[in-house]
Formats: sequence, C-alpha cells, structure tokens
Amino acid sequence: MSLIEALNWRYATKKMNGEKVSQDKVDQIIAAAHLAPTSSGLQPFKVIVVTNPELKEKIKALAFGQGQITDCSHLLIFAAWENYTEEKIRAVFANLNSERGLPESATADYMNMLITNYTGRSAEENFVHAAKQAYIGFGIALTEAALLKVDATPMEGFDPAGLDELLGLKEQGLRSVTLLPLGYRDEAGDWLVNLKKVRRPLEDFVIEMN
Amino acid sequence: MSLIEALNWRYATKKMNGEKVSQDKVDQIIAAAHLAPTSSGLQPFKVIVVTNPELKEKIKALAFGQGQITDCSHLLIFAAWENYTEEKIRAVFANLNSERGLPESATADYMNMLITNYTGRSAEENFVHAAKQAYIGFGIALTEAALLKVDATPMEGFDPAGLDELLGLKEQGLRSVTLLPLGYRDEAGDWLVNLKKVRRPLEDFVIEMN
Repeated sequence: MSLIEALNWRYATKKMNGEKVSQDKVDQIIAAAHLAPTSSGLQPFKVIVVTNPELKEKIKALAFGQGQITDCSHLLIFAAWENYTEEKIRAVFANLNSERGLPESATADYMNMLITNYTGRSAEENFVHAAKQAYIGFGIALTEAALLKVDATPMEGFDPAGLDELLGLKEQGLRSVTLLPLGYRDEAGDWLVNLKKVRRPLEDFVIEMN
Repeated sequence: MSLIEALNWRYATKKMNGEKVSQDKVDQIIAAAHLAPTSSGLQPFKVIVVTNPELKEKIKALAFGQGQITDCSHLLIFAAWENYTEEKIRAVFANLNSERGLPESATADYMNMLITNYTGRSAEENFVHAAKQAYIGFGIALTEAALLKVDATPMEGFDPAGLDELLGLKEQGLRSVTLLPLGYRDEAGDWLVNLKKVRRPLEDFVIEMN
C-alpha cells in the first residue's frame, strides 16, 4: 500500500473493537515518531504508551468520554517539553557527538547559539515550538499506523492540564499535546466509517508561483 | 521501501544538485499534505509551490542565504491561516456536505460549536493552532518525499514576516510557517550526508504506563 493509499484508507476512527495491536506494529509506529525530524534534531517531545485499563478510564474522563480511549489497544500520548533548557540541549549534543565519535567541539558553536536563543525566549514560546515538533512526529506516526492497517484517532479534544496532573508530566518537564489511540475499527458501530473522505478542492489548497 | 526505511534514508539535505523533481512526484508530495488529517477537518493551511528562480533568490535572502532554496527543484512553503473565521469554517462544511450529498443541517450543530469556540479565541491563539495542523501535513509531505526518494530539507530558519510580505500572504489571510525545498542531494558537496543519523535513545523517548 502506498502512503497515499494509506491516507485514503485511514479516517478518524470513532469506534474501535477492542482487538489488540501486536507489539511489533506498536513498535514500528513509535519508531516512526522517533525518527521524525525536529528542529535542530532536539526531539523536544516524548511518547507515552498507556495500556492499563484503569488509567485509560481516568483519561477518558478527561477527554469528553470519547470511547476510543478505552476501546483502543494502545493509547499514545504525545507530550512536548514545557521549555527548552540548557541542560536538555547539552544532553542532545552530548549524545549526538558520542554516537558520531566526534569531540564536543564539533558542535559547540551551534549548540551555544541554540542555548542562547532558546533560553532568551519565554517558556510559553518555547513550549509552542516544542509542541509543533511533536505534531511532526504525530503526523508521521499516524501515517505509519495507516500503512500497517492499524486504525488511529488523532485527538486534541481533552483537558491537557488535567492529563498532565494525572500522569505526573509536569514533574518530568512535559506537557501533553495530542492523543493517538491505536486499535481496529468497529465497522458496525462507527458512524463515520462509511462517509466519504472529503478534502478542500486541491485548487483551493495549492498556490503555484512559477 | 518501508516508511521506516524512508525515514532512515532521508536527512535534512544541506546541498542539492539542481536536478528537477518530476511533476508526478511533486503532485504526490502535495497530495500527501492535502490528505493529512487536521483538527475538525478544517485544513487551516495552504501549500505554496515556488519554482521561479528570481523569486527563489529573494526568498533565500530571507532565509540566511541557505543554498537549498535556490538549488532545489521546487520550494514548498507551508502557510497557515492567520485566524479562524466564521466564513472559512462555513466554507469547509458547505464543501463537506456537498461532497457527501448531505443537507447543511447534518453538521450545523457541530459547525456552530466550532464557530463559537474559534471566534472566541485570540487571533494569535488561533494561528498557533492552525500552524500545528500545518506541521502535521509538513511531516507527512516530507515522509512521502522520502518514500519517493526525493530529498527535502525541513526548514524553520527564515523571516516569516518578510516572506509573508514578499508573497502577499497577509492579503490571503495566511502566515508562512515552514519551508520544504524538494530536490536531489549533491553527495560530493553535502557535509551532512555521510554523518550518522542520531536519535535520542529509545528508552529516553518512550514512557510505558502499563
């Protein structure tokens, strides 16, 4: 299946059937998010994987009772850094140079420029920037799910502050930004599954400047 | 090539060789962005395709002189709605119902809820939300490019206000958010091409809550 076919196959699944997604497929979906490009390679987000039924129930209560959260197999939560800090940026470059067998000096000027830039901005501005990077990984993860014929529901409709509190994310310097339940569609119970996928006309989406 | 293989193959190309990307491939990359999911299906962004050499030169000057902008084949610019408006939201649902052969009443309650919510928020808050949706499409577009063995450089490093002014985006209710030059790597001239791709250790990226 091509990526375009996969995107046409997928839809924001409204009702899942409770079937488990294999660990191998979950691993590939997470690997896609992990490989996603991010600004300066900082990867300022994490993916939280929830399978615990009681925890899923509590999260559902923070997400307008949307049933996919409990009917899914694995619930992915994308959580961005609440701020960029010198410590976090240094850790990224230490790992980078270690993996490449390069000295710290190889990236010192670039890293110091990033530290100066990010630490000079407000925490909110930095969080918004980090959240955008999380959306890149989020988009690529749901695309990989579709290629593997795993259903997924991209969700922003939840109480992020409540979820951060429930999961103790603040203590880890994270703020939740999106949810992605993974599972399999319940064709009989899903009102959306048979409705035509609609996008804006292409001529209203693309502007050519030749 | 699998999506994971494609993500391992791709990198933020620093030097392109000027070779043209076929229109068919460009169309598929744009189709991927066009099919990307967005919040409530509003698709609050557009993709601008620049091939004009003089225009690319002017854009390069707004982007720290980065050579990919002129050496690429096609420069994609992702530009998000500067605000959500009642008119724009109504147009999305008019198209949706028309394509599905449904009456306006099919989505009226949901649409009116969205109009109330979005028009009650600041333009800046709405722009940030729209920009995040653009990042989903941006991530999926660069993934499709990689699957087609087309190189691409995801870029945030440019002067968005200057670019909006140059392209007259404000008059169209848009603000530029990212650039994606498409082309082919110049292996001999690219310092990054042979460096190992590095990501944070997976155990520092995933949090399991079982």
